[in-house]
Amino acid sequence: MVDVSEPLVITFLSDYGWRDDFVGVCHGVIARACPAARVIDLAHEVPRHDVTAGALLLAASLDYVPRGVHLAVVDPGVGSDRRAVALRCADGRYLVGPDNGLLAPAAARAGGVAEAVELSASPFALTPVSVTFHGRDLFAPVAAALAGGTAVAACGERLDPGSLRAASLTRAHRDGATLHTHVQYVDAFGNLQLDADAELAPAGTVALSSGERALGRASPGRTFADVDPGELVLYEDAHRRLAVAVNRGSAARALGLAVGDELAIGAA
Amino acid sequence: MVDVSEPLVITFLSDYGWRDDFVGVCHGVIARACPAARVIDLAHEVPRHDVTAGALLLAASLDYVPRGVHLAVVDPGVGSDRRAVALRCADGRYLVGPDNGLLAPAAARAGGVAEAVELSASPFALTPVSVTFHGRDLFAPVAAALAGGTAVAACGERLDPGSLRAASLTRAHRDGATLHTHVQYVDAFGNLQLDADAELAPAGTVALSSGERALGRASPGRTFADVDPGELVLYEDAHRRLAVAVNRGSAARALGLAVGDELAIGAA
Amino acid sequence: MVDVSEPLVITFLSDYGWRDDFVGVCHGVIARACPAARVIDLAHEVPRHDVTAGALLLAASLDYVPRGVHLAVVDPGVGSDRRAVALRCADGRYLVGPDNGLLAPAAARAGGVAEAVELSASPFALTPVSVTFHGRDLFAPVAAALAGGTAVAACGERLDPGSLRAASLTRAHRDGATLHTHVQYVDAFGNLQLDADAELAPAGTVALSSGERALGRASPGRTFADVDPGELVLYEDAHRRLAVAVNRGSAARALGLAVGDELAIGAA
Repeated sequence: MVDVSEPLVITFLSDYGWRDDFVGVCHGVIARACPAARVIDLAHEVPRHDVTAGALLLAASLDYVPRGVHLAVVDPGVGSDRRAVALRCADGRYLVGPDNGLLAPAAARAGGVAEAVELSASPFALTPVSVTFHGRDLFAPVAAALAGGTAVAACGERLDPGSLRAASLTRAHRDGATLHTHVQYVDAFGNLQLDADAELAPAGTVALSSGERALGRASPGRTFADVDPGELVLYEDAHRRLAVAVNRGSAARALGLAVGDELAIGAA
Repeated sequence: MVDVSEPLVITFLSDYGWRDDFVGVCHGVIARACPAARVIDLAHEVPRHDVTAGALLLAASLDYVPRGVHLAVVDPGVGSDRRAVALRCADGRYLVGPDNGLLAPAAARAGGVAEAVELSASPFALTPVSVTFHGRDLFAPVAAALAGGTAVAACGERLDPGSLRAASLTRAHRDGATLHTHVQYVDAFGNLQLDADAELAPAGTVALSSGERALGRASPGRTFADVDPGELVLYEDAHRRLAVAVNRGSAARALGLAVGDELAIGAA
Repeated sequence: MVDVSEPLVITFLSDYGWRDDFVGVCHGVIARACPAARVIDLAHEVPRHDVTAGALLLAASLDYVPRGVHLAVVDPGVGSDRRAVALRCADGRYLVGPDNGLLAPAAARAGGVAEAVELSASPFALTPVSVTFHGRDLFAPVAAALAGGTAVAACGERLDPGSLRAASLTRAHRDGATLHTHVQYVDAFGNLQLDADAELAPAGTVALSSGERALGRASPGRTFADVDPGELVLYEDAHRRLAVAVNRGSAARALGLAVGDELAIGAA
C-alpha cells in the first residue's frame, strides 16, 4: 500500500547565514531524502553561536508555523561530545538539533518531550559524517526522515528525556520599584527585547540605567510612532515581551546595549 | 464538492530583512492557513521604511511573476491610523499591504483597482493583532485566504478605491538640453536607476552634475563592459529605465548619490 | 496523453545577493514557465564576479542535491560576447549559465558534457533580452524548460562541448617538506578552504607563511574545538579539503588572507 499522506512541513533555523551554501545544501539533502517535504526557512542569521537567541526564536515561532519537524542548528560544540538529538514532543511536534539547550524552550512550549533519541549512529546519517557540518550529514537527513513518516525511535538510540540540557535563560526580577531586566534579543532594527513579560512594565515614564550608567527616559507606548523620532519608547513587542525602541532609530546603538546586558527600569 | 483548483502563488516583498524571523514567521502563518500555497520571496531587503523603493520593485516585478496574490509590507506607519488593505485589480491580481502608496504603482500596472477592502477587522486576522507586526497578524493571513480562493469582499470592509493613497514618485523633466533626473533606486552593486525612461537619454557623451557639483562625464553604452573599468556608463537597465553605473565599481559611491538625489544630465 | 511526471528540481546559485529583487524575479520567471518546478536556492551571496568561488560551490553541491537542473549565474561578462549555454551531462544533470568556467568543475563531476547548446537565440528567451540581466531573460526560462522536460537540443544552437571554457583553478604543490597552497574559498566565519585535499596535510604542528610573512603555528585537529579559543587549527573541512580556522574567531582576519592568496604549510 502506498502511503499517500503529505509529509510534515520542516521549519529550519540556524546560524549558518545566507552567504555560503550551508543552508542550500541542507535543503538539497532534504529534497533528496523526502522530495515532497516543504521547508520553511525560519531564520538563518541567528548571531553566530548564540544558542540562547536561537532557542528564543525557535520557541516563539511555534505558535505561527505548522505542527511539523522543527530543525534547528546553532551548534558551537559541533564535533565535540555534545549530543545530537531528535525529540518527539507531547503535542506531536518533532525537534531536531544539538542537545545544548537550543531545543529546550521549544520543547517546553510543545508540551514537553515524550520521546528522545541520540543521532550519532542514526541509520539516516550521511556517512562519513563530517566533524564540522552535522546540519548536512546528521540533522537534515533525520528531519527529512521524520517528515516522511519515520518514527523517532527509528532515527537513533533512545535516551532519557530527563538528561537533556536546559537552556540558560536570564529572567527579570523586581527590586522595590525597579524592574531588573536583561537584553534577550536585538532585532535588525536595533529594538531590544527584554526578558520580561510586558505586563511587568512600571507605569508612566521610566528611567533606564545599566549598571552605573544612566541611559535616559523612556515613555510607554503602543508603538514606535507614539514618541517623537529619536525618543525612547517602552512597549509590548509582537511576542508580548517588554521591549525598548527608538522611533526611527536603533535602541541598541543609542543605549550601547547588546544581548545579555542588564537594563534596569525605574521610576523617572 | 471539493475545490481541487490550485491556490494562487503568493509573492512577498518587505523591508523585514533576512536577519530576524519576521519573513519566516509570515511563511509559517501562510502555510498554516493555506498549506498548498507557494510563496515566492521577491525581496526582503528593501531599504527600511523606503515605501517608494518598495513600490517601484513591486510594480516592476509584475511582468515576471505569476498572476497571484502580491503581498508587500514596507510599513513605517504600522500601529498608526494608516489603513491596511487588500485590493483586487482589473487584471485579476490581488495586492495586500498598507495603504501608504506602496501598492499604488503596482495597482496601476495591473489595470487599476476594481475592488478594495480595509482589513483591520478582517475575519482572517490573527487576534489579538499586534501593534508592530501586521505582516504576521493581518497581511499574511489575508494573503493566504485570497490565495485559497476567498473573495476579497470577504476579507474586510469595503472601501472606495478612489480614497487609496498615491505613491509619491519623482519624475524627470527636460530643461533645454539638460535632463533633470532623480535617483530612484540603488541596487546592491551601486548602480543608480533614474526616474527617466531610457529613450530620454541625450545622445553621445554627457556631463553629470548634482546641484552645484560637477560629477564628470559618462559614455553611453549597452552594458558596463562598454566602458573601461572605473569609468561611468549611461545605459538602459533591465527595467528599461535610464541608469548610471561604474564598470566594476559602484556609481553610488563614486558619485556620492543616494535615492532621491538630483542628477542632471547635460551636453559634455 | 498527459505527462504526469514531476518536473526536475532546479538548484540556483548566483552572485545576485538577497538585497535586490534579482533572485525573486528569477523565481517568478520559473514559476510562470513551469509552475510545479521546485527551486532550491543554493547560494546567492557568492562574492560578486568571483567565477571561481561560484564554480567550486556549484561542483561541491552536486553530491548533496537532487539530480536536476543546476542554474548558476556569476557573470561579469554579461552583455559581452561570452556565450550563454545549457549542458546535458553524462550523469543526466543539466547545467545552465554563462560559458566562463563557472560550470566546468560541476560538469566534470557530473561525468562530462554529453551535449551542449548556445542560448542567445533560444526559443525560451524572454524578448527583448536585456543586456544586463540574462538570469531573468535567458537562463531562468531555459532552466524552467529543461525542468519541464524539454530536450536540451530544443533550447538553443548545438555547440562543440570541446569548445567550452575551462575553470581557472589553482592547485597546491609540494616543495620538499613544504606544501604550497592557495586560499580557495573563505566562508562567512572566516574559515580558509585551501586548494589541497586534506590528506596532503603535513603531520603534527605546522608553521604557516605567506610570501615573506610568517603567520604562526597551527595544530592539526578534527574540529575547531580541538584547539584553544583564538588558536589556529588545520583540519579537513566538510568538503574533504584542507582548511585553516581560528577557534571562535576568523582565520581570514587573523592571517590577513583572502581568496587567491598563497599559504605555505611547513615544518614547525
